[in-house]
Amino acid sequence: MLNVTASFDLSALQARLARAASAAHTAGVDALLVSPGPDLRYLVGYDAIPLERLTLLVLPAAGTPTLIAPQLEEAAALASPVGALGLPVRTWGEIEDPYAIVAELCAGAGKVAVDAHMWAEKALHIIAALPSATVVSAGPVLGELRAIKDGAEIESLRRAGAAIDSVHAQVPSLLRPGRTEREVGRDIADLIIAAGHVTVDFVIVGSGPNGASPHHELSDRVIQANEPVVVDIGGSMPDGYCSDSTRTYAVGDVGDEFRAMYATLQAAQAAGVEAAKVGIACAEVDAITRAVMVDGGIGDYFIHRTGHGIGLETHEDPYIVGTNQTLMQVGMAYSVEPGFYLSGRYGARIEDIVVLTDEGPESVNNTSHDLVVIDL
Amino acid sequence: MLNVTASFDLSALQARLARAASAAHTAGVDALLVSPGPDLRYLVGYDAIPLERLTLLVLPAAGTPTLIAPQLEEAAALASPVGALGLPVRTWGEIEDPYAIVAELCAGAGKVAVDAHMWAEKALHIIAALPSATVVSAGPVLGELRAIKDGAEIESLRRAGAAIDSVHAQVPSLLRPGRTEREVGRDIADLIIAAGHVTVDFVIVGSGPNGASPHHELSDRVIQANEPVVVDIGGSMPDGYCSDSTRTYAVGDVGDEFRAMYATLQAAQAAGVEAAKVGIACAEVDAITRAVMVDGGIGDYFIHRTGHGIGLETHEDPYIVGTNQTLMQVGMAYSVEPGFYLSGRYGARIEDIVVLTDEGPESVNNTSHDLVVIDL
Repeated sequence: MLNVTASFDLSALQARLARAASAAHTAGVDALLVSPGPDLRYLVGYDAIPLERLTLLVLPAAGTPTLIAPQLEEAAALASPVGALGLPVRTWGEIEDPYAIVAELCAGAGKVAVDAHMWAEKALHIIAALPSATVVSAGPVLGELRAIKDGAEIESLRRAGAAIDSVHAQVPSLLRPGRTEREVGRDIADLIIAAGHVTVDFVIVGSGPNGASPHHELSDRVIQANEPVVVDIGGSMPDGYCSDSTRTYAVGDVGDEFRAMYATLQAAQAAGVEAAKVGIACAEVDAITRAVMVDGGIGDYFIHRTGHGIGLETHEDPYIVGTNQTLMQVGMAYSVEPGFYLSGRYGARIEDIVVLTDEGPESVNNTSHDLVVIDL
Repeated sequence: MLNVTASFDLSALQARLARAASAAHTAGVDALLVSPGPDLRYLVGYDAIPLERLTLLVLPAAGTPTLIAPQLEEAAALASPVGALGLPVRTWGEIEDPYAIVAELCAGAGKVAVDAHMWAEKALHIIAALPSATVVSAGPVLGELRAIKDGAEIESLRRAGAAIDSVHAQVPSLLRPGRTEREVGRDIADLIIAAGHVTVDFVIVGSGPNGASPHHELSDRVIQANEPVVVDIGGSMPDGYCSDSTRTYAVGDVGDEFRAMYATLQAAQAAGVEAAKVGIACAEVDAITRAVMVDGGIGDYFIHRTGHGIGLETHEDPYIVGTNQTLMQVGMAYSVEPGFYLSGRYGARIEDIVVLTDEGPESVNNTSHDLVVIDL
């Protein structure tokens, strides 16, 4: 990936650090230990590449946060908002043991929480370095914070949504019988970058029977006349916020049976968007969407949850799944993406990213939800 | 990233699985637990995107490997070499607990090893699901296997090396006083893709004083006349193998002092390449390179190890660092990249990827090691 320096609101980062420390305290966690990844970027704006050398924010429930960094990363760390935030940076040389610094900074801690995506080898080193501490995942604490987007983050998601919408608007011109999924996928990847993303995170082009695999990889299958094509695409914008939108295209005449199922899918997706309101459980949003699929006779063909949160990661809290009793709050951003999958035949999915605002659910994806028919 | 289906040699994958099982047995590990990432790609050719749902190869020291996969990933898993290998796939639905399957498949295990990059939250779930097992990192077992490249992998690294060399060959035409690092970096990123990589993994353009930060991010600093620029770039090829090469460019006249230090650096880098031979410790290769820097009076300005292994990851075993007593073997591939860094002034680095062959060390990067002077 290309690191891109974004401008940061230092007071927003300071507020996040304070909220995280407070949430750690509430959870009985003495310190949050955060390695490079979306949690670190969220808390201190430092978009460090995850590598084997230990870079670690030690964020105590009470007291001053410290960044542990390899000596050769010190300048890069200080050039990030870590410098402007005035966080102390403790460096270690190539033949020193950085986990000794972790042990020193966490002396006396009874419970520490490591970021959910920390590499297991680092978490195991931390477990060994802190024999008297319980080590848990920081996922619940930081996931809950990150799930509620502020105004600037919602603006970021709107920009990301508009960017991927502009790609979907061009997809009909790319889909032709005789082209392979891979050829179409390459064109889409170029358009994702041209639309302002800095990385292409995924490009799913599932033609005909390949549409029945929700996470189908690009293949050399040649698109045929009169079949549906599922296109699920996303990337990351310079500020790190992600786009993710799916539309289903009909290359020619896909038949009455498919169109009838698609009509049910479209109604289910709309019901899912409308279901969101403050205080409803995520599981209930999933159930409302699912009920439309079941009532329409295609519930058995819908094999996944209805959605996932999105922000600095494509998939993050809150997950819209039957087991999640988290209550919806203003500022939550998540996908609504029912689909149907008939093995060996075809599939379909419609996906928008929705933000729950004071005025209700707002979709940041606004290309047509109708089946887009490409005339042959 | 864009998933790219590569052709796979099934017998090579079968041999890797057998070697991994045997190495686990030797290490006293009852099962290797491998989540999406380079280890999984290495063992079964499945390039799954790391996501929150559990996908896990359970590879026992004795017995049949099993892939645990989310139901909606089943088709994608079977479309990968996992299908052709005939591995059993155990799927789980959205509201099931996949760790119960891990517990079932690892029943009776006394020690299991999780891949080094597994997300901590997954490793912590596995620790909780296997209360009578010791959980360790699989890094030592799998890192040692992956460190020895076979003939096809060496060919892959040669292709990656030639690709990044072709980018470096064009860098002089991009470096002009008045352009920003970011502008140059964008052009380089385009060239990395045009050269056949599928991802741009990093682009470091460290101009003037920014060259003193080894992992400098692209900035809006304007390149000045008569200053050095460190360019360290790499990407991943369609088959997953990585490139990584650094050259230092002189935009105009950088002065006698810099040129003298550069001459020492060049001699140190050449000594590091020549130092490699079967049976020498990695630490010794680092020491030989370092000694040239010290003798030339610039040892204090060299603040990192001399190199890292490379393959399906940019950084992997073997690390060429003073604490690593691993002995060099035929098939090892690693960087030789000494540098000097004078804070506030400038920096320099020369980096090649070297493969230790039967005939001795072979550099896969072959652009000139001389300071490339761009006349103004």
